[in-house]
Amino acid sequence: MSNDSNFQPDWRNDVAAEGSYRSIFKYDPTKFRHPSPAWYQMFKQEFGLSDEYFKTRQPGGDEQVAIRRGIALSDGQIRAFTDIVGKENVATDDFSRVKYSHGKSLDEDVNLRRGVVEKVPDLVVHPRDKEEVRRIVEYCNAEKIPLVTYGGGSGVVFGTRPEKGGVALVMRTHMNKVLALSELNQTATVQPGMLGPDFEAALNAAPERFGTRLRYTCGHFPQSFELASVGGWVLALGSGQASTYYGDAYHIVMSQEYVTPAGIIKTHDIPGTATGPKVNDIMKGSEGAYGVLVEVTMRIFRYVPGSRQRFSYMFPSWEAAVEASREIAQGEFGLPAVFRISDPEETEIGLKLKGFNDGLFGRYMKMRGMEPMKRCLCIGTVEGEKGFARHVSRQVAGIARARGAVSLTGYGTKEWEKGRYSDIHVREDLLDYGILVDTLESGVSWENVHRLHQGVRAFVKSRPRTFCLTHASHFYPQGTNLYFIFMMKPDSPEEFFEFRGDVVAKILEHGGSISHHHGIGRMFARFMEPHLGKEQMGVLRAIKRHLDPNGIMNPGGLLGLD
Amino acid sequence: MSNDSNFQPDWRNDVAAEGSYRSIFKYDPTKFRHPSPAWYQMFKQEFGLSDEYFKTRQPGGDEQVAIRRGIALSDGQIRAFTDIVGKENVATDDFSRVKYSHGKSLDEDVNLRRGVVEKVPDLVVHPRDKEEVRRIVEYCNAEKIPLVTYGGGSGVVFGTRPEKGGVALVMRTHMNKVLALSELNQTATVQPGMLGPDFEAALNAAPERFGTRLRYTCGHFPQSFELASVGGWVLALGSGQASTYYGDAYHIVMSQEYVTPAGIIKTHDIPGTATGPKVNDIMKGSEGAYGVLVEVTMRIFRYVPGSRQRFSYMFPSWEAAVEASREIAQGEFGLPAVFRISDPEETEIGLKLKGFNDGLFGRYMKMRGMEPMKRCLCIGTVEGEKGFARHVSRQVAGIARARGAVSLTGYGTKEWEKGRYSDIHVREDLLDYGILVDTLESGVSWENVHRLHQGVRAFVKSRPRTFCLTHASHFYPQGTNLYFIFMMKPDSPEEFFEFRGDVVAKILEHGGSISHHHGIGRMFARFMEPHLGKEQMGVLRAIKRHLDPNGIMNPGGLLGLD
Repeated sequence: MSNDSNFQPDWRNDVAAEGSYRSIFKYDPTKFRHPSPAWYQMFKQEFGLSDEYFKTRQPGGDEQVAIRRGIALSDGQIRAFTDIVGKENVATDDFSRVKYSHGKSLDEDVNLRRGVVEKVPDLVVHPRDKEEVRRIVEYCNAEKIPLVTYGGGSGVVFGTRPEKGGVALVMRTHMNKVLALSELNQTATVQPGMLGPDFEAALNAAPERFGTRLRYTCGHFPQSFELASVGGWVLALGSGQASTYYGDAYHIVMSQEYVTPAGIIKTHDIPGTATGPKVNDIMKGSEGAYGVLVEVTMRIFRYVPGSRQRFSYMFPSWEAAVEASREIAQGEFGLPAVFRISDPEETEIGLKLKGFNDGLFGRYMKMRGMEPMKRCLCIGTVEGEKGFARHVSRQVAGIARARGAVSLTGYGTKEWEKGRYSDIHVREDLLDYGILVDTLESGVSWENVHRLHQGVRAFVKSRPRTFCLTHASHFYPQGTNLYFIFMMKPDSPEEFFEFRGDVVAKILEHGGSISHHHGIGRMFARFMEPHLGKEQMGVLRAIKRHLDPNGIMNPGGLLGLD
Repeated sequence: MSNDSNFQPDWRNDVAAEGSYRSIFKYDPTKFRHPSPAWYQMFKQEFGLSDEYFKTRQPGGDEQVAIRRGIALSDGQIRAFTDIVGKENVATDDFSRVKYSHGKSLDEDVNLRRGVVEKVPDLVVHPRDKEEVRRIVEYCNAEKIPLVTYGGGSGVVFGTRPEKGGVALVMRTHMNKVLALSELNQTATVQPGMLGPDFEAALNAAPERFGTRLRYTCGHFPQSFELASVGGWVLALGSGQASTYYGDAYHIVMSQEYVTPAGIIKTHDIPGTATGPKVNDIMKGSEGAYGVLVEVTMRIFRYVPGSRQRFSYMFPSWEAAVEASREIAQGEFGLPAVFRISDPEETEIGLKLKGFNDGLFGRYMKMRGMEPMKRCLCIGTVEGEKGFARHVSRQVAGIARARGAVSLTGYGTKEWEKGRYSDIHVREDLLDYGILVDTLESGVSWENVHRLHQGVRAFVKSRPRTFCLTHASHFYPQGTNLYFIFMMKPDSPEEFFEFRGDVVAKILEHGGSISHHHGIGRMFARFMEPHLGKEQMGVLRAIKRHLDPNGIMNPGGLLGLD
């Protein structure tokens, strides 16, 4: 093994070429985040690789997209769409067909690097308003043309893969505006193709843009924030990094309007009713299989950045960190906004990434009894009204101290905030050298946290030279989530993907759920019936049959429905 | 008109006779609450009645129940049920058939006083466990025998009326226990027939009964608390008096198990997942039409009576009270538990009931600018961790003062607490003299509160000699509820019921919902499609067809499903 400590791989800094595969799979074609030298050393060591190995890159997907596939729609059918949305909003070029059918899964990344394109739509259509969507759904239903809705394109579970061809309906091109903001109701009515940053900017600037008295925030900040659409949040049941306080996307939705083959479903913006099962909730999480979301009224929250406080702690053990988290979630004193605890492996690798594993900090930690591969990092913020935030912060501090934690001030959280949306970019650098990293997450009750954590870790670590980083980052009085990050240098991507499927099976075996906030799509569809049972699946399928009798809405295995 | 100020009607104090109609419709056969002398004067005046009128009572339903109706089941069918639950748990006597099919609606009260029984089941069955329920549902489905589940019997919307005869399945007789309490998960798994006080007592005594470290509370305290079952809370979507803090029944459910003709639906106790539409939520509010709830895991809360604080305020106007409530609900400092504002008419009549409308208190109020028929009473409590409760209390006080309110200390709330579960008993005294009182409630967004309040009041008050008391008592950042109490001395009960239907139509016309927390049952079923639209009803009916293809589960118009 070469050991030139000065050598660093030539991480790429070039903007992905327009029209290239790389411009599609890269999270942001213009942004980069490189592994630190410490991480590079770690990879070499852990995977048994030399500097030499890192002198040759894997295929980078730099070619122009070229798929040479036929279009299964007739000229008359294509004309029907151009009649509805205008010629400029219909595309049949190769690039559009690939771009608007691919999400950001590792699998799609790996495939596009090799020029492998599994499925494409026949046509890409950019509707301008909900009336156009209504006409498109009506036409597709009459002609039995499959229809797959594409929001921001940040999904990681093949939710937008047009398994049976047809039309890709791109919501983010035109249907991306705030239609109304009600300061009295504290709601914003939004088109589903609006991206997170635009929505948040509009709410923060509400006094200037909507004449409100106060500023507002959407409260939903998933890692995919910069790319995901508001409609995607709702349809794939996302959770933001501040969900412990603001709730999951599921809770932030007030009312919705869907265009379905069986008609238009528009729910009331009434906060509490006892009028039978809530159709407003039934539609959430339907991932485009029940209809097209065309408008959504979201609860919004007062934007009070002045009261935000940051904290971070080092706990002596995972058990102590979990116990403190539960105590906080159940304490009835209000909840923190961001709250996250990392297990020993994630803590260690995180410290290494930042260069904090040794030196003054490392010595101080050891002095305070915080042993490597036992200690656990906790970061978080409090938000809300100033006095409330102060009180929550104090309570968190008291509980942390009682569990033996050492305060690291707000510094740890500030460091984390720098990478909260951009850490994902590091994936490309790793893939450029054949190192694969992917994530799985699972909801879990407090009773089951340790069983799930240990069971999954034992399985992942049973494979030699495999990282398994775990954190919990969404807290409820009744439980939390576990987010597993695993990294390896497999012999082939296929080996990795098969391994990932086995990890999901292990998650279910240990009482977790298939997904906490990434959705199901087609990637995890085969686990749905084993996890939920055929009776629950029967209900979901009955709704599908009713709303979409011809099976045109995002067909082909999505959610295990067809 | 006679005007003997010493005369008071001879309000009844006798325990309803066993086996009588009165013992069925009276909320509690042994409890009473009489109108105050001030109220009596008010009724005489408002309804133009004399003391003479109050010397003769209306029929009181004191007769023994006797219906002399056939049983539409064969001996073999009855034997099938006795084989499952044992002879002692099957009844065909008249009293059982009437008792276990009637709720506590005013209509049923009026009818039973006249000996009018609309529908009865053929058989009353008391299952002992969920396996017996499974066998009963299977048998009823095979034999196409209608099955109506009866929980606590507190419903007011004909939810337990066996429109097509069949079997009344009584859950509260045996299936009324806490099966498990998880202190880690902070949940309790309960059988659906458990009544509120038993559940709360078990949770308060958790250290002694389940060996927990802490005491717990269920957080759900509807006015029907003493009579309603936990299953009923969930199936009819109730809201407790402390729902502003603890959430509606909908939010307090963690997971459920149902026996349906299409199989057993058992959901996971995982607090957050992204595994498609949530069947756990789809089943809530199904009022027995989708299957029989046999087990429910409820979220529970730390019981900290020591931090409870009470407050009450007088606001100078309804507008000020509403504005302050909205400010509190949206303030992001935590929420009060009980919170209730009364409109001017309810405030005035409430003060009169307690004798506070004049005297020292009355003069003090006027001096502080609180004019009769303008001023509005606000009462409430704060709960949770001590510092949190203190902070919420202070914030509430600040907002109330800023809107011109005068503090009445915790006294007003203590007075309200005395009658929180028993005020309902006054209905019998009034009915004994032909005065009818009923309530309707509606969910409403903040934008619509005044429009709904004014629209409904204008309609109710357009009828001469009619009281209309309104309060809001369940608060959300996005809106609240309006609870309308109307009282009159109609020429006939039928006149009253027709009027009530017209009020519901007015509610819908002014943007409210059919029901905020009383459910739909059969009473309001005809408003479902106009309110929700045929598309939403289509979804609810599709689920019904799937889970109950033979239409045996609580059939006959419930929720407008069949």
